[in-house]
Amino acid sequence: MIEITLPDGSIKEFEKGATPMEVAKSISEGLARNVISAKFNDTTVECSTPLTKNGSLTLYTWNDKEGKKAFWHSTSHIVAQALEELYPGVKLTIGPAIENGFYYDVDLPEGNISEKDFPTIEQKALEIARGKHDFEMRDVSKSDALKFYKEQGNEYKVELIENLEDGSITFCDHDTFTDLCRGGHIPNTGIVKAIKILSVAGAYWRGDENKPQLTRVYGISFPKQKDLTEYLELLEEAKKRDHRKLGKELELFTFSQKVGQGLPLWLPKGAALRERLEQFLKKAQKKAGYEMVVTPHIGQKELYVTSGHYAKYGEDSFQPIRTPKEDEEFLLKPMNCPHHCEIYNTRPFSYKELPKRYAEFGTVYRYEQSGELHGLTRVRGFTQDDAHIFCTPDQLDQEFKEVIDLSLYVLGTLGFDDFTAQVSVRDLENPEKYIGSVENWEKAEQAIINAAKEKGLDYVIESGEAAFYGPKLDFMVKDALGRHWQLGTIQVDYNLPERFELTYKGSDNEMHRPVMIHRAPFGSMERFIALLLEHTGGNFPLWLIPDQAIVLPVSEKHEKYAEKVLKSLENNEIRGLIDNRNETVGKKIREAEMKKIPFMLIVGENDESSNTVSVRRHGGEDLGATSIENFCDLVSTEINSTLKSFKE
Amino acid sequence: MIEITLPDGSIKEFEKGATPMEVAKSISEGLARNVISAKFNDTTVECSTPLTKNGSLTLYTWNDKEGKKAFWHSTSHIVAQALEELYPGVKLTIGPAIENGFYYDVDLPEGNISEKDFPTIEQKALEIARGKHDFEMRDVSKSDALKFYKEQGNEYKVELIENLEDGSITFCDHDTFTDLCRGGHIPNTGIVKAIKILSVAGAYWRGDENKPQLTRVYGISFPKQKDLTEYLELLEEAKKRDHRKLGKELELFTFSQKVGQGLPLWLPKGAALRERLEQFLKKAQKKAGYEMVVTPHIGQKELYVTSGHYAKYGEDSFQPIRTPKEDEEFLLKPMNCPHHCEIYNTRPFSYKELPKRYAEFGTVYRYEQSGELHGLTRVRGFTQDDAHIFCTPDQLDQEFKEVIDLSLYVLGTLGFDDFTAQVSVRDLENPEKYIGSVENWEKAEQAIINAAKEKGLDYVIESGEAAFYGPKLDFMVKDALGRHWQLGTIQVDYNLPERFELTYKGSDNEMHRPVMIHRAPFGSMERFIALLLEHTGGNFPLWLIPDQAIVLPVSEKHEKYAEKVLKSLENNEIRGLIDNRNETVGKKIREAEMKKIPFMLIVGENDESSNTVSVRRHGGEDLGATSIENFCDLVSTEINSTLKSFKE
Repeated sequence: MIEITLPDGSIKEFEKGATPMEVAKSISEGLARNVISAKFNDTTVECSTPLTKNGSLTLYTWNDKEGKKAFWHSTSHIVAQALEELYPGVKLTIGPAIENGFYYDVDLPEGNISEKDFPTIEQKALEIARGKHDFEMRDVSKSDALKFYKEQGNEYKVELIENLEDGSITFCDHDTFTDLCRGGHIPNTGIVKAIKILSVAGAYWRGDENKPQLTRVYGISFPKQKDLTEYLELLEEAKKRDHRKLGKELELFTFSQKVGQGLPLWLPKGAALRERLEQFLKKAQKKAGYEMVVTPHIGQKELYVTSGHYAKYGEDSFQPIRTPKEDEEFLLKPMNCPHHCEIYNTRPFSYKELPKRYAEFGTVYRYEQSGELHGLTRVRGFTQDDAHIFCTPDQLDQEFKEVIDLSLYVLGTLGFDDFTAQVSVRDLENPEKYIGSVENWEKAEQAIINAAKEKGLDYVIESGEAAFYGPKLDFMVKDALGRHWQLGTIQVDYNLPERFELTYKGSDNEMHRPVMIHRAPFGSMERFIALLLEHTGGNFPLWLIPDQAIVLPVSEKHEKYAEKVLKSLENNEIRGLIDNRNETVGKKIREAEMKKIPFMLIVGENDESSNTVSVRRHGGEDLGATSIENFCDLVSTEINSTLKSFKE
Repeated sequence: MIEITLPDGSIKEFEKGATPMEVAKSISEGLARNVISAKFNDTTVECSTPLTKNGSLTLYTWNDKEGKKAFWHSTSHIVAQALEELYPGVKLTIGPAIENGFYYDVDLPEGNISEKDFPTIEQKALEIARGKHDFEMRDVSKSDALKFYKEQGNEYKVELIENLEDGSITFCDHDTFTDLCRGGHIPNTGIVKAIKILSVAGAYWRGDENKPQLTRVYGISFPKQKDLTEYLELLEEAKKRDHRKLGKELELFTFSQKVGQGLPLWLPKGAALRERLEQFLKKAQKKAGYEMVVTPHIGQKELYVTSGHYAKYGEDSFQPIRTPKEDEEFLLKPMNCPHHCEIYNTRPFSYKELPKRYAEFGTVYRYEQSGELHGLTRVRGFTQDDAHIFCTPDQLDQEFKEVIDLSLYVLGTLGFDDFTAQVSVRDLENPEKYIGSVENWEKAEQAIINAAKEKGLDYVIESGEAAFYGPKLDFMVKDALGRHWQLGTIQVDYNLPERFELTYKGSDNEMHRPVMIHRAPFGSMERFIALLLEHTGGNFPLWLIPDQAIVLPVSEKHEKYAEKVLKSLENNEIRGLIDNRNETVGKKIREAEMKKIPFMLIVGENDESSNTVSVRRHGGEDLGATSIENFCDLVSTEINSTLKSFKE
């Protein structure tokens, strides 16, 4: 008999050689129907793997990340079989699961695969899946494995096997297909009900541009056809909401090859939107006792050697800037913290003056390879809504709570209502990895957990995920498309106060080290605006959106009246514009819809004579004719209902 | 007979050999009494120099810059004589006039000169001056000149003479003293009535640190003792108002050796002040039709090669920034204009959409040698209140006027009431020096002159002072200490639109080049705040000053009430603080005076019982007890009287 420990801590006895599937059956029939993969003592196993010793077992279904991984990895075998059948002579290389689906890199004997071939591949793969073939792992000797692939003439697999140790090599069989594989499959092919080939791309063998170019076939699969349909709809919606596309259409930002890749230029509408976001946070921060500071975008290399950032960013980031006649080296700042530490160091502080909360919309520069740049989410220069709180260890608890309050206010006001928190703490088994006293760590971790509890956050604790310099809390936000983003970090730091020798005089008249908290509710202006664009599809909250209303005169005759309406809007601080082109109202409405303008004010004969506007909401709702005053009230009521003051 | 043209254009005949002094006498006895120097055909001459041909003559008095130059240069001869008498064996090198006074670099035989020696030198120099010795120029041959100084053993003068051409060498004599000199003296030593030695410093011969170190003796002199007294008072006042001193006392900004020299760190009070100034200008700019943009602080080297800035700043400024794996070079941006040109180039414009006015508080970086850095006025990184107007040539006239309006609004609101304008136009004799058509230049110059006239500016036209790319207008501001500063440039540019190939579609459906206007009413935030600090001595306008009021409870008993008062201030958006230290009210008042806080609200028994505050203005005026509401009204009335909206 062996003892199997389940995730809830319960221990069950089974006969030696029992499989995860048998364990699942012993728990419930329902679980057994859904279980598709398992982990035994930190190793991924098949549902059919005999368990021969005591250990911990986790069972996975489609709803688990690990379950999806096994599902997609297994589908890559099925697709590989389909490719072998459709493209005789194709040489398989590797086929892993990825974040959304899987790929398989293959060396085609001739020609290529194009979009028109996708349905054929999908059909063939589905046919194989429907055969309900079990995935079966077997050990092979290195010589047999090499023989198998040498006979096929597959030099790629041969190269892979040559780097493996004899005794550790396994093949996976299903139907007539065999693949070199470490394992981690679903029980049988029949569970895969929907397969979609998404794209093909070129990829070098082992990512090395000096090696042969292969064809990478991307795909995804699901246990239900309906799941695939929903996924494809989501993809379509994500494409429409792509912030790079919307940013261009709404004239928010641009890039210039001359200025340089990954360096956004904010156009007037985007810069104004950004300024509104900044002012929104500045106002809340002022209320929360923050003080703004301004620091330069460069610093001497020595500053970052002191802070430790040079060790982290130095070699791999923008290289040092020299000056013509003096022996100096500067770096573009990758972080604002060293500058804020130097501000703290300007004068001595007493414990009575703490906490000091220094905030700055600080633009930092970090090198990214040009191939990895992506719109506003992966850039080379970005502005953090940064702040550093310098406090006594005793104040940490209260400060952390207040930072959570501020973060919740920011997320809530911007419409990110679905989020969880992740608390990263020490790995208690490796205490030597961390700087700072055990006492302070305990205090800080407890402060974070208390704060998360007290603020009613839905949080998980991740042991060993803390940075060496302190524990932290991250907000994980789910956007309108169900995607998860990390937004807003709150990080405790015992390291920089040490490196910059920061002090305050305590009530005991002795000098002590303050603790630092780093925090940025938006993260960076660039990334936040990108996510907000994709979350809202460009339909920003009314207080934030570039143009709140557009006046559409039905004919040239009403242009004067339209101007009068616009003037009234301006006097009421409503951002408006006029479309007085010689076009039909229908066309003007369609274009205003494209531009995501929340209100269209159509003005014609009746409106002019009765001093009204005919209001149409973005999306089509007709609010009828109303006085300009009423419309202005409507706008301010809506704004006031979404844009509350912090701690109102 | 020769014909002498006077500055008013009149031509007078004199006998050949007449001196400038004789010309002065022929005009008026008063002028003759005051004339101290002259310029004949662009060459500085003595009042006693015989004029031997036709030409233009300008006569200078103490009130002219050129007059002061001759006065101070002449005084350097007198001081040199004093030094020879007091320090036998001293070797003279050079002794020019400078902006305020003069210096003489000497090689002392032994010992040094310290402050305690200044009165002796001044006394000796005055004694010489009182001798009313004429300054007399004479030609010497190169060999005689060399012989003269070789006998003295003065290797410095020998080196100077060796680099001169025989036939062009002159000596100047007065009393028993002789110096190698090109001329430019006052008639005699007696005009100098007051001499002050200001300081001594080390200086290398020819500014070369490998050559001998000399002693530089700085001094100044005046035609009246009263002028010296006033000047010394001014110096004293300037020292008190030094922005570096005030910036530290008022906790506005700091520098950190670790971050780097010339890179200001703005402390909370300074950053907030700066933000208020920025918001003030943003509001006015919004009204004037500007749009804010945001651009990165770096750009590819090629961008600045295109703009021409690399040729200007490249070698002598911060060196290019390389990236680790790619063949790229970036520069810290020395100017914002190239970025704004790229924003303009994002999409095509029709003439109907112009002018486009892009504004940015853009931080730029330019290398300065560390020895030349000075507080906030000479830095390595600064934020320009930059904007670029892209308009049609026909719109230039109107745009220029509007920019003048904005500049006048800014200067007026900030209390710079005394200023002139300098219009820099082409050198008509060298048309090849300028880019852009003659037609456009004429249009632009006329536009500037028209605008200056129409706006009632006190302006001068400086021919040949225009940049090669366009004419400009500079505001020259006189501060509270009578010093002149250039503040606010408005510059027309035909060059960048050409280099960046900017276009718009005209009403003729053809593509045209827009004209650019660069303008910055503040110049840079750093320099402007420095000047404002020195102009106001830290007594900023009420709307701008960091702390507007301080509440001073007369004892601990009234702390609660003081808190209540502070809360009322905050609710009325008055920036206040409390001094509740256990100190006397007298001491608290003295410190609040030091901190330049405009209003001190003293609260004691009577105030608490009658719900009032006893108001004391900075400087000492007692405004008596008044209700908190009345005080808040007082503040807002004063603010409203100085801070008007633009084009209110």
